[in-house]
Order: sequence, then structure tokens, then C-alpha cells
Amino acid sequence: MTESTQVHGVTHPRGFRAAGGTCGIKASGKPDLVLIVADNTCAAAGMFTTSKVPGAPVIVSRRHVRGGKARAIVVNSGCSNVATGKDGERDALTMCRTLAEQVGCPLNQVLVCSTGIIGRRLPMQKITPGIASLYKDLAAGADVDAKVATAILTTDLVTKTASRTVNIAGQEVRLAGIAKGSGMIQPNMATMLAFITTDAAISPAMLRAALKDAVSATFNRTSIDHDTSTSDSAMILASGEAGNRPITAKGKPFSAFAAALLEVCAELAYQIVKDGEGATKVFRVNVTGAKSMKDADRVGYTITGSPLVKTAVHGADPNWGRLAMAVGRSGAAVDPMKLTMSIGGIAVFAKGVNADADLNALEAHMKGSEVQFDIDLGLGKHQAQWLGCDLSREYITINADYST
Amino acid sequence: MTESTQVHGVTHPRGFRAAGGTCGIKASGKPDLVLIVADNTCAAAGMFTTSKVPGAPVIVSRRHVRGGKARAIVVNSGCSNVATGKDGERDALTMCRTLAEQVGCPLNQVLVCSTGIIGRRLPMQKITPGIASLYKDLAAGADVDAKVATAILTTDLVTKTASRTVNIAGQEVRLAGIAKGSGMIQPNMATMLAFITTDAAISPAMLRAALKDAVSATFNRTSIDHDTSTSDSAMILASGEAGNRPITAKGKPFSAFAAALLEVCAELAYQIVKDGEGATKVFRVNVTGAKSMKDADRVGYTITGSPLVKTAVHGADPNWGRLAMAVGRSGAAVDPMKLTMSIGGIAVFAKGVNADADLNALEAHMKGSEVQFDIDLGLGKHQAQWLGCDLSREYITINADYST
Repeated sequence: MTESTQVHGVTHPRGFRAAGGTCGIKASGKPDLVLIVADNTCAAAGMFTTSKVPGAPVIVSRRHVRGGKARAIVVNSGCSNVATGKDGERDALTMCRTLAEQVGCPLNQVLVCSTGIIGRRLPMQKITPGIASLYKDLAAGADVDAKVATAILTTDLVTKTASRTVNIAGQEVRLAGIAKGSGMIQPNMATMLAFITTDAAISPAMLRAALKDAVSATFNRTSIDHDTSTSDSAMILASGEAGNRPITAKGKPFSAFAAALLEVCAELAYQIVKDGEGATKVFRVNVTGAKSMKDADRVGYTITGSPLVKTAVHGADPNWGRLAMAVGRSGAAVDPMKLTMSIGGIAVFAKGVNADADLNALEAHMKGSEVQFDIDLGLGKHQAQWLGCDLSREYITINADYST
Repeated sequence: MTESTQVHGVTHPRGFRAAGGTCGIKASGKPDLVLIVADNTCAAAGMFTTSKVPGAPVIVSRRHVRGGKARAIVVNSGCSNVATGKDGERDALTMCRTLAEQVGCPLNQVLVCSTGIIGRRLPMQKITPGIASLYKDLAAGADVDAKVATAILTTDLVTKTASRTVNIAGQEVRLAGIAKGSGMIQPNMATMLAFITTDAAISPAMLRAALKDAVSATFNRTSIDHDTSTSDSAMILASGEAGNRPITAKGKPFSAFAAALLEVCAELAYQIVKDGEGATKVFRVNVTGAKSMKDADRVGYTITGSPLVKTAVHGADPNWGRLAMAVGRSGAAVDPMKLTMSIGGIAVFAKGVNADADLNALEAHMKGSEVQFDIDLGLGKHQAQWLGCDLSREYITINADYST
């Protein structure tokens, strides 16, 4: 795989134009509307929140992407269109229809995402003309990519972009993605959105398989505060313009594409955690030796979500007792006599007892900006890598100190 | 049921003596050793942590209580004897044996608990003579009850005691309990311990049934930070000296006893949450209309553990979007169109949409010291009450700002 030396945005893969602008949803006047439009119909796939109270755009996009084809995506920030009932669904559909009419494509080839405050109706009198107006700005290039990456943000501190170029049977295939997350749109919930474009020629079924694997291994193994948004969505459009022989089954070309997509998602997930609300440090949890995949995930999930582990990371405290506590309550099969735990590669607990590690060396590692925990359950061959961030006073400040 | 006007401790029920003192485990010199000894063999029951990495005292006590009989409990604070392997188990057994020899009872009629720092061996050279010496101080009465309630604490700010007197078929039966929890023994994990005595005459099987129900409905529906200690234990000894006709089956006498035990546990659980690390407010979650008991608990568990809900409570922000988010990710069956949510009795979300509640009224409620959330799923008849506390900067300070 050839890694791009420069990070490219969503119009770098061939066959896409985009635009980011302001239609007036946010009181701050910051950019709040994005269009991503393909020149031709794309293979499409999406993964959505598992919440039982999904936002209206999730309901609509999930339905539209089912056919495996899409032409465009419309995204607004500033208002999430969640908990808005049937009216909200109509608004989400109106957004799709407005863009579909501009593009000249079927309604169900437009996907829609909204992020921001919940429980309020979208200001459709601003969004509908906004879409028509922004459509005239569609373009490709670094400038528009930067605008688009910015306009999907809520209170994120930085934009999140990742790209890869991969050679598939002699053809250069490009992938690029943007994401938002960790930010809290006042006064509501954090939402993770990711939009990925590629010029690979690939069937919808294989695209879905690659996206599912990549999301499972990255965004779904990432925790800022274990709270799951009602709006979480990851979408990919594949234009096919790279000219590679279409990928329609597993094999080397699919593996190369899937590996590149995994890297793009992993980079975006890392950027989301690093920009986590109040986060000052990222920590990786490498779980090995689990009896099952589910057990490996239980341990990773519990450790990345544990307030006691997160505050220990924040305080650079090599408090392995909290790791033992989290492993113990994770629900995974655990035998303390077979359990080994390391911090920064230094064993702290080995087969039932304190490994008497050098506290100074542990502290030096914990004081770094990235902390590594290795948990070997010693019971099987399943493993999982999880990504978390520390819990700081700033998290409390961001999430407690304003009123609805 | 007659509620006591005064709160009594563990020696109030007839047939018990106790002692609390200092044997030198804590560097601070604070009390760290407790003995609770019955005049005769008691019916006994215990509920323990579900952690797969339980402390040595949990392993030993779980084994000893299995027979349903016990004569005494020995508790130390300052060192939890967790993650100490086979040596730790031997130490826990030595504690039991030392007390058993003083009492003159079988080894397996002594239960043991330890709370405090983990990963270190107990200073047995202090504990063994400490037990023998403290044994001479065994007594009953308010003074010793207060000492005992204090000596089980770690960094709890206040002692936790609850008692009830209940008339069972003409006989006055007493129950009294003490608990510790929420405190963090520097630098390790919070542990919940509860010790309850009663002079009821009741069979071990019925005692176990009553304790299991009471713990499930109280301590197990309480969350400070969702982190589960490796040492959590709740134990009850029943001396039988109340002279009631022994309770050996379900029926009115059992129901009266079980109701009183539930109240004692509920009061202790409330005191634990109120004293939660950094907590400034308690909130109650009343889940109704769930399809199953499991679903009711999923919703209560998720809301009381959600960092976003906890920070909203801290900031007195009536942010019902976060409740919707937590309900949505709880794993329970949810139909937004049937879901109703209230804050302080004021509907905020009704059947799919914002109920347009009066923000001022909501804020006034949220500013109180106790916040009430009612979640009606509208799908069935199962319900559960959960208890949580807010998440404050002080929690971060307590848990991040010192080093192992």
C-alpha cells in the first residue's frame, strides 16, 4: 500500500464534488451545511447507531442505503432532527428531495445526516433554499475539502480527515474520509459522523462488507464516554472511476481495499478520541488471550469506559488495581491465575499476583500523551484493540456548565 | 411496621457484641479493625461481588457462608487483600482462625472482609494480635456501634447506619445494618460492604432469600460510577433471640421481615450514593412500562451510569435529550412513539416528541438536592427503581490527583 504523503479530503477520489457553507442553522453563523455529490450513481453502504431512539435522518438514510446505490449526501450541523416524530422524518425526506431535484436523481439515492441540538425541528425555511444555493458551489479540490470537513463539525476543536491511495491490480484507487465527533452541540449529545468517498469499482455487497469490518474494528472499539448518540452514522460512496476491475468477491483486490478502508477509519477514530471532550491523553487497550471475540470486546469496552481507569490515566497514576477491577467486572471469562497485565510494556500483574513493577518507569510511561495497556487473559486466542481517552475536569465543565 | 425513632447499630438486635479499634494497618492511625460476634451460632447469608477477580476474603467468606451458619465476622480496612494469590487466601483464613480460636467456634463459622489498597499483602503481624486484643473489648451499646460503623470506613466522609424494628406475630424483631462505600482507599478501588444483624429466628434458606431480594432491589440498583469492586460484600447474621416462631417458609412473617430488611438496605444504599465520591446530588430513576424486568434494569443501569446524564444533573441542566440517548442505547426494547419521560413529575417527552415543558419549572427541580426521572416505556408492566449521583470535578480530583 502506498500511503499518501498529503492528507486529502472527500473530493480527492475521482468522481466527486462537494460544497460546504452556511445556511443559518447555527446561531454562531458558523458553517452548517454540506453537500457531497457524485458525478454518477455510486455503490453505497452505511452503518448507523444501534440506538432504539434513532434520529429521523438515521431512519431515512438507513432506508435509502438499503438498495446499495446512492448519488449524494446532504449533511447539516446545528440541529440533529432527533425526537421530532413523523414531522422530523418528513423534514429529513424534504432535504433529500431538495438535493435529488438539483442532481436529477431518484429521491432514495440521497442520504442525509443531521447533528446538533435535539428535540427541535429543523429550520426548513433556511435549509431548503440553502441546499439549492450551495449546489451552485459544488467543486473539487483541497479548498472545498477543507470547507466540507469544517461544516460538519459541532463543538469539535479540530477537523478530522484521513486518506489512502492503494494500488489494486495496477490501478490507483483513492479513499478519503472526514469525521466529526466528541464535540457536544450545546446542549445535547455527542454524535459521531463519518463520510468516506472512494473511486474504487466495487459492488455494494462487498462495499458493505468492507465498511462493516472497518467500523467494527475502529469506531465501534472507541469510547469517549460510552454514551451512544442517536445520530451516529458512517457512510461510504464508491464511484468506480478508478477503473479497476470491479471488486465483486473476496480475494486480493478486496483485501487491499478493505485494508485501506480500515486504515482510513482507524485514523479518523483516533482523531475523534484525541479530540474527545476534555481529553488530554489517548490510551490503547490491547486485549489478547480471550476465550471469544465477545470476551475480548467486553474487556476492552469495560476498561475504556471505566471512570476509575479514565481518571487514573488523567492523573498518570499506574493504578493497575483499577484495570483488575475492570477486567473482573467485564463479564468476560477470567481466571486471575492466568491473567497478565502490562502498562507501557511493563508487567504489573502476572498470574494472580503483583508483578512488583518499577513504579518510576510506570509513571514515566503514564505521563506520556499516549498510554498502552496490555491485558492477556491467557484463556484463548481472540484479541481486540480498543481506544479510549482520559476523564478530566474539563469534561465536567463542557457537559455540566450550561443550561438547556 | 414500627419505625425506630433512633438509629441503632449492629449490637441493637439481641445476641450480638462487637468492637472496633486500631491495629495499625492504616498509616493515618485511624480505626481499621472490627469484630462482630454473636453469643450463639446464627443463621447467616451473604451476597458477594460478581467480579471474576474477587478478593481473597470474598473467596473465603463465600465458602464459609455456604453452610448457612456463622458465629462472627472480622473486618479490616486499609488493605483489601485483593490480587494477592494463594498467599492472600491463607491470610484471610488466618484472620478467621484467629477469631474462631477466641470465640471457640469452627473456622468456617467466621466470615471475613477486607477493604482498602489492593495488590499488597495484609500486615498479618499487626492483624493477628489485633484480633486477640480487640476481642477483649467486645460489648453492646450505642458507643461500640458508633466505633464499629467508623472502623469499617476507608475514605467515606460519613458513617452509614440503618435500623428497623418489626413486629412479627407479637414478637419485636430488630434489624440493624452498617455499610461503607463510595470512599476510595488511596489509591485504589471503591468497595461496598454491608453488615446486618437481626435477632429474628429464621432459617438460613429464608434469610438468604430475603437478603438476595433486598440486595437486588437496593445495592444492585445503585450506581456511583458503574465500577464494581472486587470486594463488594453484604452479610447478615440472625441470632434468633427475638423469640419469634422461626420463619422457615414464605408467608406473612417472612414478608414482614423481608420488608424491614429491604428498608434497611435501601437506607444504607441511599447513604452510600449520597456519600458518593464528589457527589453533590442524588437522583432517582423510576422505570415503568418495561417489557421485562431485565429491560427495566437496563434502562435504570444505563441512565445512572451515563456520564452525560450525571454531568447534566451536576449542572442542574434539564437536558432530556441525554435521557433519550441513554434509553436508546440501553439495550431495552424501546418504541419512541410509546415512550414518556418526566423530570420532577413534569413531562418532557411524550410519545415521540418534545412535550414543550416549562424550562423554568424543570430547572427549579434540577437545582434541588434530589432529582427524579420517570421513564415510562409504555410496553409492559415491569418496573425498577434506580439510584444515582452526579459527576463532579471533585470526582476527578479524588480519583486522578494522587499517585500509586
